[in-house]
Amino acid sequence: MSDTTSDSFVSRHGTDGFGIAHLPYGSFSTSSADARLGVRVGDHVLALTDLVSRDSDLFALVDHRNLDALLASDRSSWDRVRADLQSVLSSADHAERLTAAAHPVAETRMHMPFTVADYVDFYGNEFHAANVGRIFRPEQAPLLPNWKHLPVGYHGRAGTIAVSGTDVRRPHGLRPEADGNPSYGPSRRLDIEAEMGFVLGSPVPGGRVSLSEADDHVFGLTLTNDWSARDIQAYEYVPLGPNLGKSFITSISPWVTPLAALEAVRVAPPVRDTPLAEYLDDAKERPWSFDVTFEVVLNGKVVANPPFASTYWTAAQMLAHMTVNGAGLRAGDFFAGGTISGPEKSQRGSFLELAWGGAEPIVLDDGSEFTFLRDGDEVTLRATAAAADGSTIRFGECTGRVIEFA
Amino acid sequence: MSDTTSDSFVSRHGTDGFGIAHLPYGSFSTSSADARLGVRVGDHVLALTDLVSRDSDLFALVDHRNLDALLASDRSSWDRVRADLQSVLSSADHAERLTAAAHPVAETRMHMPFTVADYVDFYGNEFHAANVGRIFRPEQAPLLPNWKHLPVGYHGRAGTIAVSGTDVRRPHGLRPEADGNPSYGPSRRLDIEAEMGFVLGSPVPGGRVSLSEADDHVFGLTLTNDWSARDIQAYEYVPLGPNLGKSFITSISPWVTPLAALEAVRVAPPVRDTPLAEYLDDAKERPWSFDVTFEVVLNGKVVANPPFASTYWTAAQMLAHMTVNGAGLRAGDFFAGGTISGPEKSQRGSFLELAWGGAEPIVLDDGSEFTFLRDGDEVTLRATAAAADGSTIRFGECTGRVIEFA
Repeated sequence: MSDTTSDSFVSRHGTDGFGIAHLPYGSFSTSSADARLGVRVGDHVLALTDLVSRDSDLFALVDHRNLDALLASDRSSWDRVRADLQSVLSSADHAERLTAAAHPVAETRMHMPFTVADYVDFYGNEFHAANVGRIFRPEQAPLLPNWKHLPVGYHGRAGTIAVSGTDVRRPHGLRPEADGNPSYGPSRRLDIEAEMGFVLGSPVPGGRVSLSEADDHVFGLTLTNDWSARDIQAYEYVPLGPNLGKSFITSISPWVTPLAALEAVRVAPPVRDTPLAEYLDDAKERPWSFDVTFEVVLNGKVVANPPFASTYWTAAQMLAHMTVNGAGLRAGDFFAGGTISGPEKSQRGSFLELAWGGAEPIVLDDGSEFTFLRDGDEVTLRATAAAADGSTIRFGECTGRVIEFA
Repeated sequence: MSDTTSDSFVSRHGTDGFGIAHLPYGSFSTSSADARLGVRVGDHVLALTDLVSRDSDLFALVDHRNLDALLASDRSSWDRVRADLQSVLSSADHAERLTAAAHPVAETRMHMPFTVADYVDFYGNEFHAANVGRIFRPEQAPLLPNWKHLPVGYHGRAGTIAVSGTDVRRPHGLRPEADGNPSYGPSRRLDIEAEMGFVLGSPVPGGRVSLSEADDHVFGLTLTNDWSARDIQAYEYVPLGPNLGKSFITSISPWVTPLAALEAVRVAPPVRDTPLAEYLDDAKERPWSFDVTFEVVLNGKVVANPPFASTYWTAAQMLAHMTVNGAGLRAGDFFAGGTISGPEKSQRGSFLELAWGGAEPIVLDDGSEFTFLRDGDEVTLRATAAAADGSTIRFGECTGRVIEFA
């Protein structure tokens, strides 16, 4: 990838986090063309149909409005498409044509990059789970007894996963009150959860996906904000888990970063201190965590830097767990790994933790105190990682602004 | 509907629970034709494309392999299709042609009647919730404090909803053990949940569905068996609810009974003894429960008769609740109302309750004791209801056989 010619598309244009070692996929439209599958290079978006040869068997996988057809194929096809893109973008042969075909990001509109099949939200970060335990169940041990034995997770609402930029309407629901009876109204404790999402493909109907098979099924990663109404969630969640406190919206980045782009930042997960069932025991597997640090940006100011590598359970373990009962997977299945928090206060991935349930408000630049989100607040997740060629990979931003819901 | 002519299709053929007042929809194939949308009349299945005129604007809604396009339309179209079918099937003009086009049920194979978008499983039956509370939390009040204030529910796995007849592979997972550490292996407490499922349509992107709007969005009802691995569920479910203990399979009847067929059995739900938030207060709404009694059949023998009308929360309330936060609904969204149990032991809709967590085994005809499902066991749900014309409506059966999962 370092032998890019001096007159290739990538050498002609700045890359700035979106170089040839990255090449994330998204669904974009322009004023003159409907949504189609694209790849981001620097500040430009290129349609995959302008990059993959019409003579290639791969063309049928990319000539779509989003990733669905590609997800329904397999790792071999994913690798071949990526190799094709890297070849074309780094060759001098195509620079003129591609420059003409490229769309400045500012002139594109982004759409959901894939159709979500099932969505599972895990709770895989020990710092987060322990913080939540301390805040909500101070009289008990921070972690529940099952937490180190399996990656706890639940199904979320696939139909409300929305692309970055979609407004976040403050949900109404039943909120706990001191007298024991709930009150109905807009959430007073609207929060974020900074998470990494994993986009799955290469279907396995009714089967299992072992730890060593995860590479064949994780297509890519996308920043995910699992917006949460803490008061609604607190009232509803016993005994069957979160529902309305989460189901109003989950935002994802419009750009799906291919798993293959992240080889240089694969790292071992935290040390396991509890023996694991064989299907979860990753001691002899290749590492499945990623050294990716997030930025949580509130109204333009960075308020936290959650480190993804602090997550205890890996994506491979989550996938093995999800499927060990034979649930299998469909193209477009999606899961998020849980709110990312680190050991430091500045590394917490939710306002619940950053302001400790409201007990320790964040002091903003204007001196005011902040606990949960107010109408008009905007939260953006960003993240970067090192690429194998020494360049930087910038994940697509995941942003949303809170508005009133009439 | 009583003016069926003496030489109509329905008069020529027996109806036996599938008469002109029923007309459930399903997806069927034959040895010579791929899956397409059909309606069941007596022991025959008719393709909707043989019943709806090609000249009608409705033809485009029914010329599909399943209900998806019809669900994406609206109540007005649903009513018009049903009226068309009733007219054609009760007229002498078409009897000859339809008799030639009809497929004996025995020569058909049934498929999933619609593509499931999101699936929510509620917990809306007070007898069931209280029984489960008594079995699992004997030291506490049977109902948790939130239970009478909102219909508790959680999202299930849409991708493993399967049509009746699909084998039920005994799931493997982590089971609680006396020493506090889980063991991995096949579930030892495999159970059923007899539920009524509700198929939704007429999409409401990002909106709410009020109680009075429910009639416009509930397309039809289908018997549902929410197979549950009680041991896996018991270990995993804190604090985020069921996951692997439920996600291996949920069976539904291949036939979706239209809401319109059940007008004669609409009844008021149980008396409400707790004040409700306005969006859930159905005191002034039309009744939204249904007098439908189930049969739970274990290996050919009826072991329970759960009465659906005992369910405290109605489908209209569940729908209002699901959407009050703006989650909206998509065509193909599906929810189940929760395990149906009545006040009598013979009315319990799960083996967990029938055998009281294993403490009170069921004695089978051969004198053996039964608690949870064994490999080879077959469970069938059946249900009947009275139709407006005095005939009987038989819901499509929902059956599954337990097999080992290698």
